[in-house]
Amino acid sequence: MIRAMSTKSRRQFLRSGAALAVPAGGWVAQGGSQPPNFIVLFADDMGYGDLACYGSPTIRTPNLDRMAEEGTRFTSFYAAAPVCTPSRVGLLTGRYPVRAGQPNNTGPDTVGGLPLSEILLPRVLKARGYKTMAIGKWHLGFQPGEYLPTSRGFDAWFGLPYSNDMIPPWVKTNRPLHLYRNADAVEEVSEQSDLTPRYTDEAMRFIKSSRDNPFFLYLPYSMPHLPVSAPERMRGRSRGGLYGDVIETLDWSVGEILRTLKDQGLDGNTMVVFASDNGPWHNLPPRMLAQGVEPWHAGSKSLLRGAKGTTYEGGQRVPGIVRWPGVVRARQVSMDMASTLDLFPTIVRAAGASPPADRVYDGADLMPLLRDGQPSPRSHFYYCLGKTLEAVREGPWKYRFARGRGEDGPSQDAPLPELFHLDWDPAERHNLYDRHRDRGNRLAARMKEFAEEIRAGLSA
Amino acid sequence: MIRAMSTKSRRQFLRSGAALAVPAGGWVAQGGSQPPNFIVLFADDMGYGDLACYGSPTIRTPNLDRMAEEGTRFTSFYAAAPVCTPSRVGLLTGRYPVRAGQPNNTGPDTVGGLPLSEILLPRVLKARGYKTMAIGKWHLGFQPGEYLPTSRGFDAWFGLPYSNDMIPPWVKTNRPLHLYRNADAVEEVSEQSDLTPRYTDEAMRFIKSSRDNPFFLYLPYSMPHLPVSAPERMRGRSRGGLYGDVIETLDWSVGEILRTLKDQGLDGNTMVVFASDNGPWHNLPPRMLAQGVEPWHAGSKSLLRGAKGTTYEGGQRVPGIVRWPGVVRARQVSMDMASTLDLFPTIVRAAGASPPADRVYDGADLMPLLRDGQPSPRSHFYYCLGKTLEAVREGPWKYRFARGRGEDGPSQDAPLPELFHLDWDPAERHNLYDRHRDRGNRLAARMKEFAEEIRAGLSA
Repeated sequence: MIRAMSTKSRRQFLRSGAALAVPAGGWVAQGGSQPPNFIVLFADDMGYGDLACYGSPTIRTPNLDRMAEEGTRFTSFYAAAPVCTPSRVGLLTGRYPVRAGQPNNTGPDTVGGLPLSEILLPRVLKARGYKTMAIGKWHLGFQPGEYLPTSRGFDAWFGLPYSNDMIPPWVKTNRPLHLYRNADAVEEVSEQSDLTPRYTDEAMRFIKSSRDNPFFLYLPYSMPHLPVSAPERMRGRSRGGLYGDVIETLDWSVGEILRTLKDQGLDGNTMVVFASDNGPWHNLPPRMLAQGVEPWHAGSKSLLRGAKGTTYEGGQRVPGIVRWPGVVRARQVSMDMASTLDLFPTIVRAAGASPPADRVYDGADLMPLLRDGQPSPRSHFYYCLGKTLEAVREGPWKYRFARGRGEDGPSQDAPLPELFHLDWDPAERHNLYDRHRDRGNRLAARMKEFAEEIRAGLSA
Repeated sequence: MIRAMSTKSRRQFLRSGAALAVPAGGWVAQGGSQPPNFIVLFADDMGYGDLACYGSPTIRTPNLDRMAEEGTRFTSFYAAAPVCTPSRVGLLTGRYPVRAGQPNNTGPDTVGGLPLSEILLPRVLKARGYKTMAIGKWHLGFQPGEYLPTSRGFDAWFGLPYSNDMIPPWVKTNRPLHLYRNADAVEEVSEQSDLTPRYTDEAMRFIKSSRDNPFFLYLPYSMPHLPVSAPERMRGRSRGGLYGDVIETLDWSVGEILRTLKDQGLDGNTMVVFASDNGPWHNLPPRMLAQGVEPWHAGSKSLLRGAKGTTYEGGQRVPGIVRWPGVVRARQVSMDMASTLDLFPTIVRAAGASPPADRVYDGADLMPLLRDGQPSPRSHFYYCLGKTLEAVREGPWKYRFARGRGEDGPSQDAPLPELFHLDWDPAERHNLYDRHRDRGNRLAARMKEFAEEIRAGLSA
């Protein structure tokens, strides 16, 4: 049986570049130099302010708080897009969703999905001998079968093909909502309250069965996307009502997974990432208010402006926590920019591999920040809504030129230039464009240039 | 020399009621049973979201975070009023400012102040043998001299008689802004950047010189009230800009005070409270934007609605932290209601005394919550703006009937009934009055009754 590396040998492994020398045939026989495992826990529509460690006044999240204490917590961590599908595209491809060819959501009647030419993170890891599993919501296409997780680099999958609201009465479709096991629809979902516990059980089983092999577990929870639902035993426990129960169930799940890692002796050899796919769904369409769904079944964006579906900070700035005892700095709070787009290069490098050389990536390796407290390698972040590039951040400055001024997404209003200093004014209350037109215009030019590069549109 | 009690004997002191038996003559000679010291640190216009432990994304507050870790942090802690003077009235009298007869701010040309018939906390403690000192902004009246701190129960005072903006160009007055030493104006303030360090020095001196006597230190900082100013050595240090520098200077100050307590062996015998007098000043009048004051020199209310000068949560819900090693529970986060109004009875009881029996108090002893994790004794909180009672909270439900819907305070709009569930919806986004009219109307009736009791007005 292969044991996890000591902290020292892990550090040597990571620093020496020795990892790169490991043959592509796999790790199992490499005894004494087993590369790290990776777990990405990805909440759905969780807001920036939904965890106690991000300031929730009503929700208790002791496991995620502890994970933050034992690792690095970001206060400026960006999902790749402000809605579900493209956010997942960005995480799994390492490329802006427009560049990757899938900038919008897919639905229950969509044929196709994320272009098959895109290379997903699990495929790169699988080529390095990793066991790979997806558990939870996919949402990158499910028909034909070549769009399913098991055709995109995951050895196994258990979960939903898309969002949990994509059945009547919330969404018009004739297709039932199915749980899949690998490529097969195995069960029609009638009750959603046990989704998080079932995902958690699967995750624990996968971890236990993978302990002798490097593994990648991608766990995109179906919650807290509407309609929110918590298991019976968790209902009524949170001060924050049903939504709080749902978040506290996710926190319980994270606790179970961390406990399993510890029990299996994998604690020090596993990077665990927690993030959310976009901000809270504050701008519900009326169709959603059916079968007990209430408008307050949504999270908090804390001080941020905007919400899901907007390119204000509330749409894309989400909780971001990375834990890897002995490697990633504990009790580190980073105020630098980072993104789910950075996870692809970070994880690939930490596995001793390189991102495929045939394409452009939109992220950078966060390990020098995570391990050594170096500044973030990310100098820019581009905010797209669908195919439209609406904003760019450079250091603390954010330039935005888009329709819509609040939580409701695009409107018929003419766009107007906005310039915010996100360190002084993270709430985007003060438009400084008139004071700093040169800076604003320079960022506008950069945005135009980048839109051309990735073939995005601009607001007009 | 009298040493601090051990944790065990302090607990016995507090639980046995023995404290009540101590004669009123003073504590100095009581050897072995010296009662606890009290320090109240009170920021000016700091928002709910300005500390890292309350979710600030840009401001680092390691000392206050540690204070919270070592003590109890409240997520539903209310200042007594949403503006300066009445908030201080509530803290120091333990009574709603309308009841105490001083519901509005005083200014540099005000004659009189808080009615002389009101009994302030330091007076009660002084009668028990405490040394008492106020350091910082008073704002309860300064002319004639009988309104000064040294006439209201404080042995000594060093600080400003009112807010730091109450000079031209921000406020019209011919009176210079003076620093006082006891009853004397000793220095005209030309530079405000050293106010926090000077207050801190005074505090450390007072603590050191009081170590052999029970003491009460009230430290109402002048910062972060506009115009914000930080000492040279702190400028440019915070990610949050000048406002961040100012908050980080306050955090440094708290660190110095906690360190002094420890060095003096007083750590385990001193209750330290940190709070703010009201929410951030987001609704600045244009007169304030002079001499470098910028609208973003204000704090964050995090997810809360409203701001200073409003009876939405952002006006009155503030950071609230209580630390007393060995007595107050460490790592306790309480989501129950508590208020600066509760500090009077809490502190008076912990000192072994009782609040004067000749008047009504609006708070309750928080010690069972702080020490034993009991539920808060507070069942209601009443929100007044000036003489008008605008809202009431009962458990999680808040009923509000007021002019003004946002950050800007009263407006010409007709008031409309609002009902919020603050556990489900701390951001006050969802008015449930139409769904729960009976509950709303019951709270309206209770509000009317209470308005009659304290002689407050109601919106009409």
